[in-house]
Parts: sequence; structure tokens; C-alpha cells
Amino acid sequence: MVVAAAILPELATQLVVPVAAAVGIAFAVLQWVLVSKVKVAPEPRGEGGSAAGGGAGAGAKDGASEYLIEEEEGLNDHNVVLKCAEIQTAISEGATSFLFTEYKYAGGFMTVFAVLIFVFLGSIEGFSTKSQPCHYSVGKTCKPALANAAFSTIAFVLGAVTSLVSGFLGMKIATYANARTTLEARKGVGKAFIVAFRSGAVMGFLLAASGLFVLYVAINLFGLYYGDDWEGLFEAITGYGLGGSSMALFGRVGGGIYTKAADVGADLVGKVERNIPEDDPRNPAVIADNVGDNVGDIAGMGSDLFGSYAESSCAALVVASISSFGINREFTPMMYPLLISSVGIIACLITTLFATDFFEVKEVDQIEPALKKQLIISTAVMTVGIALVSWLGLPYTFTIFNFGAQKTVHSWQLFLCVAVGLWAGLVIGFITEYYTSNAYSPVQDVADSCRTGAATNVIFGLALGYKSVIIPIFAIAFSIFLSFSLAAMYGVAVAALGMLSTIATGLAIDAYGPISDNAGGIAEMAGMSHRIRERTDALDAAGNTTAAIGKGFAIGSAALVSLALFGAFVSRAGITTVDVLTPNVFIGLLVGAMLPYWFSAMTMKSVGSAALKMVEEVRRQFNTIPGLMEGTAKPDYATCVKISTDASIKEMIPPGALVMLTPLIVGTFFGVETLSGVLAGALVSGVQIAISASNTGGAWDNAKKYIEAGASEHAKSLGPKGSDCHKAAVIGDTIGDPLKDTSGPSLNILIKLMAVESLVFAPFFATYGGILFKYL
Amino acid sequence: MVVAAAILPELATQLVVPVAAAVGIAFAVLQWVLVSKVKVAPEPRGEGGSAAGGGAGAGAKDGASEYLIEEEEGLNDHNVVLKCAEIQTAISEGATSFLFTEYKYAGGFMTVFAVLIFVFLGSIEGFSTKSQPCHYSVGKTCKPALANAAFSTIAFVLGAVTSLVSGFLGMKIATYANARTTLEARKGVGKAFIVAFRSGAVMGFLLAASGLFVLYVAINLFGLYYGDDWEGLFEAITGYGLGGSSMALFGRVGGGIYTKAADVGADLVGKVERNIPEDDPRNPAVIADNVGDNVGDIAGMGSDLFGSYAESSCAALVVASISSFGINREFTPMMYPLLISSVGIIACLITTLFATDFFEVKEVDQIEPALKKQLIISTAVMTVGIALVSWLGLPYTFTIFNFGAQKTVHSWQLFLCVAVGLWAGLVIGFITEYYTSNAYSPVQDVADSCRTGAATNVIFGLALGYKSVIIPIFAIAFSIFLSFSLAAMYGVAVAALGMLSTIATGLAIDAYGPISDNAGGIAEMAGMSHRIRERTDALDAAGNTTAAIGKGFAIGSAALVSLALFGAFVSRAGITTVDVLTPNVFIGLLVGAMLPYWFSAMTMKSVGSAALKMVEEVRRQFNTIPGLMEGTAKPDYATCVKISTDASIKEMIPPGALVMLTPLIVGTFFGVETLSGVLAGALVSGVQIAISASNTGGAWDNAKKYIEAGASEHAKSLGPKGSDCHKAAVIGDTIGDPLKDTSGPSLNILIKLMAVESLVFAPFFATYGGILFKYL
Repeated sequence: MVVAAAILPELATQLVVPVAAAVGIAFAVLQWVLVSKVKVAPEPRGEGGSAAGGGAGAGAKDGASEYLIEEEEGLNDHNVVLKCAEIQTAISEGATSFLFTEYKYAGGFMTVFAVLIFVFLGSIEGFSTKSQPCHYSVGKTCKPALANAAFSTIAFVLGAVTSLVSGFLGMKIATYANARTTLEARKGVGKAFIVAFRSGAVMGFLLAASGLFVLYVAINLFGLYYGDDWEGLFEAITGYGLGGSSMALFGRVGGGIYTKAADVGADLVGKVERNIPEDDPRNPAVIADNVGDNVGDIAGMGSDLFGSYAESSCAALVVASISSFGINREFTPMMYPLLISSVGIIACLITTLFATDFFEVKEVDQIEPALKKQLIISTAVMTVGIALVSWLGLPYTFTIFNFGAQKTVHSWQLFLCVAVGLWAGLVIGFITEYYTSNAYSPVQDVADSCRTGAATNVIFGLALGYKSVIIPIFAIAFSIFLSFSLAAMYGVAVAALGMLSTIATGLAIDAYGPISDNAGGIAEMAGMSHRIRERTDALDAAGNTTAAIGKGFAIGSAALVSLALFGAFVSRAGITTVDVLTPNVFIGLLVGAMLPYWFSAMTMKSVGSAALKMVEEVRRQFNTIPGLMEGTAKPDYATCVKISTDASIKEMIPPGALVMLTPLIVGTFFGVETLSGVLAGALVSGVQIAISASNTGGAWDNAKKYIEAGASEHAKSLGPKGSDCHKAAVIGDTIGDPLKDTSGPSLNILIKLMAVESLVFAPFFATYGGILFKYL
Repeated sequence: MVVAAAILPELATQLVVPVAAAVGIAFAVLQWVLVSKVKVAPEPRGEGGSAAGGGAGAGAKDGASEYLIEEEEGLNDHNVVLKCAEIQTAISEGATSFLFTEYKYAGGFMTVFAVLIFVFLGSIEGFSTKSQPCHYSVGKTCKPALANAAFSTIAFVLGAVTSLVSGFLGMKIATYANARTTLEARKGVGKAFIVAFRSGAVMGFLLAASGLFVLYVAINLFGLYYGDDWEGLFEAITGYGLGGSSMALFGRVGGGIYTKAADVGADLVGKVERNIPEDDPRNPAVIADNVGDNVGDIAGMGSDLFGSYAESSCAALVVASISSFGINREFTPMMYPLLISSVGIIACLITTLFATDFFEVKEVDQIEPALKKQLIISTAVMTVGIALVSWLGLPYTFTIFNFGAQKTVHSWQLFLCVAVGLWAGLVIGFITEYYTSNAYSPVQDVADSCRTGAATNVIFGLALGYKSVIIPIFAIAFSIFLSFSLAAMYGVAVAALGMLSTIATGLAIDAYGPISDNAGGIAEMAGMSHRIRERTDALDAAGNTTAAIGKGFAIGSAALVSLALFGAFVSRAGITTVDVLTPNVFIGLLVGAMLPYWFSAMTMKSVGSAALKMVEEVRRQFNTIPGLMEGTAKPDYATCVKISTDASIKEMIPPGALVMLTPLIVGTFFGVETLSGVLAGALVSGVQIAISASNTGGAWDNAKKYIEAGASEHAKSLGPKGSDCHKAAVIGDTIGDPLKDTSGPSLNILIKLMAVESLVFAPFFATYGGILFKYL
């Protein structure tokens, strides 16, 4: 039975997408409003309590009486609230100042790169303004390459700006929520959890919805010019992905260097030399450290996932445009990727309510299950959503472009592609949790190895990271095999979209971590009681695991996205095979597999050097500011913030150049075959290092927390804080910092950005590339 | 101008190869005799001195007066000599006992695997004894698959036995030379250097010559049966490579686990807990540690390089047999790989004389240059040798099989292929030296990072390892590109042979390291004066760098060899393209790139677990044997040797199974395309980890030595021994131990063994493989 047309009419599609985006944005605003009800400015006691109550009990089921669930502490102390407000302002200002500096450089870079895109792509037909015969739609006329160059450039800028705005707003809400989480922690761990989680949701929904909305608007506006030429239209749209990913380079790499330079620098002097606790206000780098959480883990992670989302959508669209959807101008099936994302927003909205309204976190050990439930519920709900979209949005039979041929595909097969990506994400999430949470034996074994010192801790930690790669790789390989076999590169692209379809929930639980981390820092700095700190620490420990899960998702989706982009690049470059048995391809593969090492060497060294600068400044302040150690004088936080800012911007230039120049150099001089090899090599090698680095780091961090918490007999035998075991664990944790937050996640950017850049420049390389082989 | 035949007649070739092998063996025996002139049994003073003089001044230019170059020390003390003899015996017995245990298990494994080979390969034509039409020589009749199965099995056993015997003899001479080196160190660093270097040369020449000789004999004997069927003959000969490599699995992986379990275990209790120096005789694990140097670094490295040598020869021969050499039955060009190795032995012989006779090492700072000169001289001499062989041994024009087609090649192009491999080896050697010797800034930077503790040391060390990958990969990529472009997979195979053609010299300088290391250990244990220990330490420091260089060679050649084997496999399996753009291949690539991580996780964890067992035993002895710390009671060395032996055999099973089963499972269930992907993925990913792991470890080791030696102002500011900096450096060194001596070098085995196993089983996979896809 062949149903020729999709059930959903074009008009409905034109409504569903923007409405879903609007709902997502409205939901984000609502969460923001709820968070804002917690006041950080001191107020008369009664009002303050009531306002905070409104914020926390969003369901408002039983009002103020809720407070009595756990012991309230320090609610009366107006000084504490004042202090929190002050610290929050310092963090927010530091983060804003860093982001503005970053955006200044990013702006310059984007401008240069926009010009490059325009010139390279415009040159293909010698800047001719005449229409040309289409590549794939035989007999039709397409817009000139110059137009594609112009619109690609516009899409590039749109992608960059959307990423920038989303990241900035995410950082804003995070720095807005951190002190509020601390204040709510006085009332109980449940209250604090809700504030942190809601704030994460603001970030998640804002990013997912605005990404979708801008893409939708761009397609429709560009369509006014392109009309019937969908080939050109969606080729130009790929600029959106490149823009998003370029911004992610700054967010992930720059932010990653920032956050770890500050963190490592603060720890090396504070914990190791001066023996003062983490987040102690006497430490001059403490504000920079807290700023780092926001610019690295919030804005950086956001821009990374936004990039993945934009790229997988673009990869799917560009393949679809040369498949039957595009050739027959079927609007609804063409918009299938956007429909998936639209349904994703709604599915995540429902999921969020399970954490904030349907259930309530009352105790510490309910936090991690609550976050895990988010993953499971969103995946389950979304599976239904995908089925619905695949049924309503696709014809039963259609064809997909498969490296020169058209492959016949059924709608249920596409459902399987998206679903396998979605579920692979869940598997990766759970495996990551298993290897990084201190509830399971891997991390406990690492903690145990601290008995014989830091060396065995490091050996076991590295081995754990390597081992943790196995199942995620099988999960990714299975998704690729299924989706690739069923629907070629389009299948892989929608599998990536499937993994990213619950991005709003993923980002919410991910952003929750750094917010809790900050909340703990503020509690410490504001001099709040030990009990408050314990509550925020409990939130933070769960956050460590969710951060690792988030990184797992980010890497898994980056792998799928890169492959999809790679496929789109190959299609666009007119290659039909990438044969390992040719020297051009093989050396590309070998050198490509080396690039993640080169890149990691740069980013790790960057963190090391920046941290050493921080160490010097912190030491200088301790040595020259009288009364600093005694707590009678205040440190100069601003200088440390400036050091981290300057170092991160400066240090990101070499790795950034490596990523941006490699495809251009290889494509221009060695041609598209070698570039294909490089992309494939970087992909298969990079994904392994990224997973192992981020899990090793996460495991060390939680092994340390396991010893500190001393929750079991075994843990008690290793502790307490300050024991030799604990010192060994701290060394592991410090080594893990750059691995898990800088070099590991930055590899996502390496593999994705090289692929999307190759895709955007594919027409140029196909025309002028490989000059070295041509003339040798 | 086309010259149809090679200048060298068949008879000459039949003479040159065995004569070169015989010369190599005779030279090895001569070196042994010279070493044996140093007596470890005490003798009347005059005679002892004279005998030792004969041993050291092999050139015997200026007799006994030489002694006065450096201060002689402790020559009178007969007790010391007795003590040395005793320790030497303990080490030799420990090593022999381990190797016999290892061989017992290896024997069992080899038997099972030999049966497997016979059954799998015999089954291809249903164990038919009838001759079949040839695959490649159209119209001719070839021997039945059953015969190939039988001869492959015999070749497999031959390869394994040759590897075993060479490794065993290498270990024997090393344990024979260690105490002699110590005793010679009393007379000066130059004398000690000569003994250690000569002993290394014994190992190098013995292995290179016997490997060549057995291969030559096997080809001639098998030829008696095969007659004109060269296709079958050289297919069967590939079993030789598989045998050599399977033995290397035991040598490298088992030996690697042994040596580092003992080393890490000894250090963790001795240096860290009990604060006694390295190699202190009170440490119960000290003999096991010294045994480990011999079984891991000598026998293991030897079997690894022998495997590479055997495999690259086999890969070249199997491709040649289906090229014009084989089709036209041209004996001399067919033997080109063996001619290269023959000339290599002569070139290395000349090179060795430069270290032992033409020049003399008189001072500590002449050691490293002397070893470096060996590399340069052997490369230069060998370049001439290759030119000669290519001119005399090849017709001017011939064709090489290139995945289904025949490619025309000229003799000078083959010269370029071999030469590029040879010179790439030199480049890799120098880059490795730059990154691991403490004479240059990379290691000094790592040492400097110890100021801020172990964490920064580890971060900088890991970054250094990652960075050190860049140039070697470019060197390998360039060699592959050139040789692949000029002469397809045959070119790659002979490039690998080129890199290995100076194997005798390479092994000599490589084996020199552990011998010096042992000599230092014996000096310490025998209670010799601090000055003797300083001299052996100087020898050892140079040995660390040459060990890293040796590993660089081993990895570089492993990469080339694996690619050549991969090419031979693909040819034999009848595949003409390995297209990354098919799901089968891509998932193979992704999973293959993951295997080195899985494998490393296993080997690192193995070292960790075995070391922990050792720690427990050492602690037990210190706690229960009264007077051990005071030096009045002797520890129980034998139990520690036994723990290392048992643990290493047990712990090598999982990684061994991973290597051996992966090709069988993938080939049988997923087919040759996926297996191709797996091999390519493991190759491009494994080579990076192997290089970075071994350089990171080498750098940490020498950073520690840099601080200990305190030879510069900078080094002094970090030291002395026991300072916080030094402690941080020791942690790095301990982490590096398993990286550089177990998990890193073991990856060579992973990538080579999987490739050669696939090659041997290729006929089976091509016939029966991929059942999963066939029935799905």
C-alpha cells in the first residue's frame, strides 16, 4: 500500500512548528517568573517567607505550611541574604564581562569568516549573477552560486547570533538562580532542587525553542527568494549549522579553558598550599571559579548542544532537499526534522512537570532518581511523539538520496531511525551514570585504589575511562548501522535529531549541576551554616553525574551529527565512494585520527598554562595583602577574573585555528577524498577520547566526593577529608578537571565543526580543491 | 628502456641470503664471547683484571693501561663479585622460570590455535585433496586448500618457535651481561657501556639473522612440495608471521604486565611507604623488578620486533606472489624482501663497529651521542644497501598487484619505498628522543610543572604525549602515501621492511637500556659504592631515551606492517574497495577505533591489580619478617617472582582473547567488509594511543631523573630527591610505567596480530564469512 502524500497538510505544518516554538518560549518564561519569586534582596520577615514560598511551591498545593518538612535555618539572618546578593552580583558581573569579551573576539572572527564564506562560495561560478542548471533536479534552473553564497553567509550569522543569545540568556538565568538556590536550601533540599531545576529548564526550553524558531523563520524568508529552488535554499541553510557550531567553538573551548584555569588555579593554592576549603571567600580565585561554572558548563554546553541541534537539522534538510521530498517539493515531509523538534519541545514540557509538579523531591536520596526519571520519561513520551510525527508527517513511501542513487524508504523505517537515536542516547546516559556515579562499583574501585596513592588512582581512573567507551560505542554503532542501512545519511541525521529531540530536558538536568555547584559556593562564601552546605553538596553530587550524562549525550549526538554532516558533505562534493584502499583517503584517515590528540594537547596545555598564571596571582595576593588569610582583608577578585578571561581568549586561538584551518587547507590542497578521510578519522578517533576523558574526569570527581561524604563503611575507611587517601583523590580530581570540562567536550566541536565547515565549503572544494595532486 | 630480468642470478640470491644470516649469527656469537671474558666468579687479582680488560677493550688497541682513563673502584673486593654473581643467578633463574611458565601456556595456546588454523583453512574446499585452479595465475593449477592449511600450520609453528628461541636467548645474554656491566662499571663508564652494548648486539643480530634464516629455509623446503605454485607457497608462508606475532602477544602483553606489576608494586611500598631507595635489597620485590626488565623489555620487545619483521616480509611476499614476480616465477625479485634484510644485517654489522671499535665512549655525556650515531650511521649505510639491492635484485620494470589490477612499477620506485620507510624510522626516532630526553624543553617543562604538584605534572605529561604524536604520524602518513602511490600495498610492505632493516642495531640500542638498568640494580643490591651507581645511572638514563626510541620504531613499523597486512588481507579476501560510505564498513571503523581503548583498559587494570597483589605481599613480608628493614634478615624474593608470574599469565587472558577472537568473530559473523573497517579503525586509532602512551611514560621517567640528577640550575631548584617536586615527579613516573611498558607497546600486538590473523583466515572468511548479514 502506497500512500503518496503526507496526512498533515502544509498549512498545519506551517502552524505546528512556530506554535511549538512559542509554547517552549512561554514555558521558559513561566519557569523564570517562578524562580524570580525567590527574593535575594532582604525583606521584612513575613513577606520574604511568603515570596519564597510562592517561588518554591510552584504548584502551590499547600502553601506556606510546606516549610516544616525539613528544618529551616538562618531564615532570619538578613545579613546572609545581603551577602548572597552581593556574591551573586559579583559572579554575574564576572560572567557577563567574560562573555562580552568573548563575543567581541567572536564577533571579529565571525565577520572575517562570513567574508570568507561569501568569497569562497561566490567564486564558484566566478561571482556570476546568472541562474544555473540544478545539480540534482534534472532540467530545472537553480539560483546562482552567488546567491547561495550570500544566503549561506546570512544563515551563518543567524546561527551564530541565535547561539550567542541563547547562551547568554542561559548564563543570565543561571547566575540569577544560584543565590536563590542557596537561600532556598535554608528551607530544605527539595526547595533548593526545584529552583535549580526550574532555572535549568529555562535554559533548555529557551535554547530548543529559539533554535527551532529561527531556523523555521529563516527557511520561510529564504524561501521567498529561492521559490522553487529547494536545492539552493537548503544548501544555504547549512550556514545556520556552521554559525551555531562556530559560536560553540568559543563557548566550549574558550569557556572550557576559562572554567578550568580558574578551578585548577584556585584549588592548587587554596586546597593544596593554604589548606583552606573549596569556595573559601579568602581565596582570590573563588569568584572566577564560580564564574567559570556559568560560562563553561552553562553557556559552553548550551552552545555545543545548540550547534549539534542546528547541524543535524541542516544535515537532514540538505539530504532531504535532493531526495524525493525536495525533488517533488513536498513541504510537510521536508519539514520532518523540524516537526520532530517541535514535538520534542512538547514532550519535554510534559516531562518537566514530573519533576516540578507531579512529584516532589523531599530527601537527598530522591534527587538522583528524580533526574534519572526525567531521562526515562522524556524518552518514553518522545517515542510516542516520533511515531505520531512519522505517521502524520511522512508519506508511506519515498526515496532518499544515497551517494548518487535514490533509495526507497518507508515512513516506519524513518520512525525506527529517529527512535534508535533517541534510545541510544538513553543507553549512553545510563552507562555514563554507571561509570561516573559513586553509587556503583567502578567509581568505588577508583576510590579504593587511592589507598596506594595518587598513582594507582590515576591508573585506575584512566582505565575506567577507556573501559567506559565500549558500550556507548556499540550503542552508537548500532544506531548508525540501523539508520544508515534503512535511510542512508538522512537516517543518520534524523537519528542524531532523535537523540537531540529531548534536548530541553537534557539541558535542564545538565544546567542544574553548575547552578547547584554555584549555590554551594555562595553558601560557603556567605558564611552559612554547615548544614546548608551539606544540602547544596548533595545537590551538587547528583549534578556531577548529570553533567557526565549530559556530556555523554553531547558526544553521542556529536558523533551522529558529524557522520550525517560528513555524508551530506560527501553527497554535495559529488563523491560516491570513500575508499580506504587509496593512499589519499588512508593518509587522511590516519592524520584525521591524530587531530583529536593534537587538539587535546593544545587545550590541556592551555588549561595548565592559564592555571599556572592564576596560581601566581593567587599566591601574590596571599603574600602581599595583609590579613587575607585571617579574613580581615578582602582579596582582589577582579584581577583573577581578568586573568582567566584573558588567558582563555588567548589560549583558544591555536586550537581554534587548528579546527577552522584544517578543512580549508586539506580541501584546497589535497582535495575532497583526503578531506573525507580526515573527517572520518577525526570522528572515529575523537569520539573515543571525548567519552573516555569526560568519564575519567567525572569518576575522579565523584571518587573524591565518595571519600568526603563517607556514607558507607568502605568510604569511611578511606576518609576522612585530609587523609592520605583523600589527598590522592584530590590529585585525581584536579587532573580530571581539564579532561572532563575542557579537552574532552571540546572534541565535540572539533569533529562537528570540521564536518559542517567541509559541508559549507563543499561546492568550492569540488570545483577548485586538491590543487596539490592536480599539479603533481 | 626495459630490462626484463634482475641482474643478480638465482644462484647468487640462493647464496647471499643464507650467508648474510650466517654472518649475522657468527657476529652475535663473537660479541657473546667478548662479553664472556668479563668474569663474574672471583679470581686472583691480576688475572681478574686482565680477563676483564680483554672483555672491555675488544679492540685491544692499548691493553690494560686503558683502565686508568677513569678511576677504578672496588676492584679488590672479592665479596662484591661473589655478591654480583649471586644476584645475577637469582635474576636469571627468575626470568627463566617465568619464561618457562609463559611458554607452557603459550605452547597450549599455540597447539589449539594451530588446530584451528588447520581446520578453518582446510575446510575451505571441504578438506579435498584435489588440486584446484589458481586464483590469480589464470589457467594454472594450484595445490589444494588442505595443503595450504597444513603448510600454514607448519609455518605458524616455525614462526612461534623462532620467536621463542630468539627471545629466550636474548633474555639469557641480557641476564648474563647485567652483572658483567656492573663489574665493568668499577673500571669506568666506557667499559660498562661496551659490555652492555655488545650484549644488546648479540640479541639484535641473533634475532635478525635467525628470523631471516628460518624464513629462507622454510620457503625453500615448502617449495619442494609446492613447485610452481607460488601463490599457495607464499600464502602458506604467512603463517610464519602469525606465529611470530602470536608469540609476541605473550612476550609483550604477558611480559609487560609482569615487569610493571613488579616495578609498580616494588615502588609503591619501597619508595612511598618505607622510604628505601630503588633496588634496595631489603625490598622483597626487587628481584622480580629486575627479572621484569629482562622478560618485558628484552624478550617482549624482541618478540614484538621479530613479529613485525616476519609479518612485513610475509605481507610483501604474498603480494609479490600474485604480482609479475610470482606470475613469471622470477626468483631473485621475489626474494627482494629477504635481500633487503640480508643487506640490513651487514649494514648493522658495520654500524656496530662504530660503537665498539672505531670510537670509544669515555665520558658520561658521550653515551647518548654514541647511541644516536648508531641510528644515523645505520640509516646512511643502509640507504646505500637498499640502492644496491634494488639495482641488482630487481628488473627495471615489473608489475605489482593493486586490488584487482596490475600496476607498473620501476626498480627505483621500489628503492624510494624502502628508503622512505627507513628514513621515516629515523625521523620518528629523533622526535621521540626530543620528547622524552631530559636534554630538551618538553621534558624540562614537565619537570617544572611538578612545582605545583602531581596533578599539573600529569596534565602536562599527558599533553606532551598527545603532542608527540603529531610529527611521527605525519612521517608515517608521508611514507604510506609515497609507497602506496608508487607500488600499492607491496610498497607499504617494503617500506615497513625498510624501517625494520636496521632491526639489529635498533634492538642492540634498545636492549642496552634494560641491561644497564639491571646493572644499576645489581650495584645497589651488592652494596657497591655510590660512584658505581652513578655510572650505571648515567647508562640507564641514556637507556630510557633509547627505549623510547625503540618503542617509537616498534610502533611506526607496526603501523606500516599492519597496513601492509591489511592490504594483503583485502587482496586475498577478494575485496577491491573498502568504502567508508557503507554502514558495514563505517561501524567496523568506529568499533575498530574503540578496540585499543578496550585493550588498554584491560592491560592497565591488569597491571594495577597485579601490582596491588605485589604490594600486599611486600607489606606482609615487611610486617612479618623480623629484621628485614634493618637488613639483618633476607626477604623472600621467590614469592614475589611467583606472584608476578602467576598474575601476568592470568591477567593476559582477557586482552589476549580480545585480540585473537575479534577477527574471528567479526569475520565469521559480519564478513570481510566490516572486518576491513575494524582493522583500519584499530590501526589509525591504536597507533596514536601507543605513541602517546609510550612517550608520556618516557617523559615522566626522565623528568624524575632530571630532578634527581640536578645537573642544571633549573633542575637543582626542583630537587633534591625527596623534595615535594620530586615526590610529584615520582607519582608521574609510576603512572607512566604501565603506559610506556605495558598498555602502549601492547597495542602494536593488537593492530598487527588482528591484521595477520585476518590475512591467514582470509580464504575462510571470503568463503564462509558474514553469516549474520547473509541470513538477515
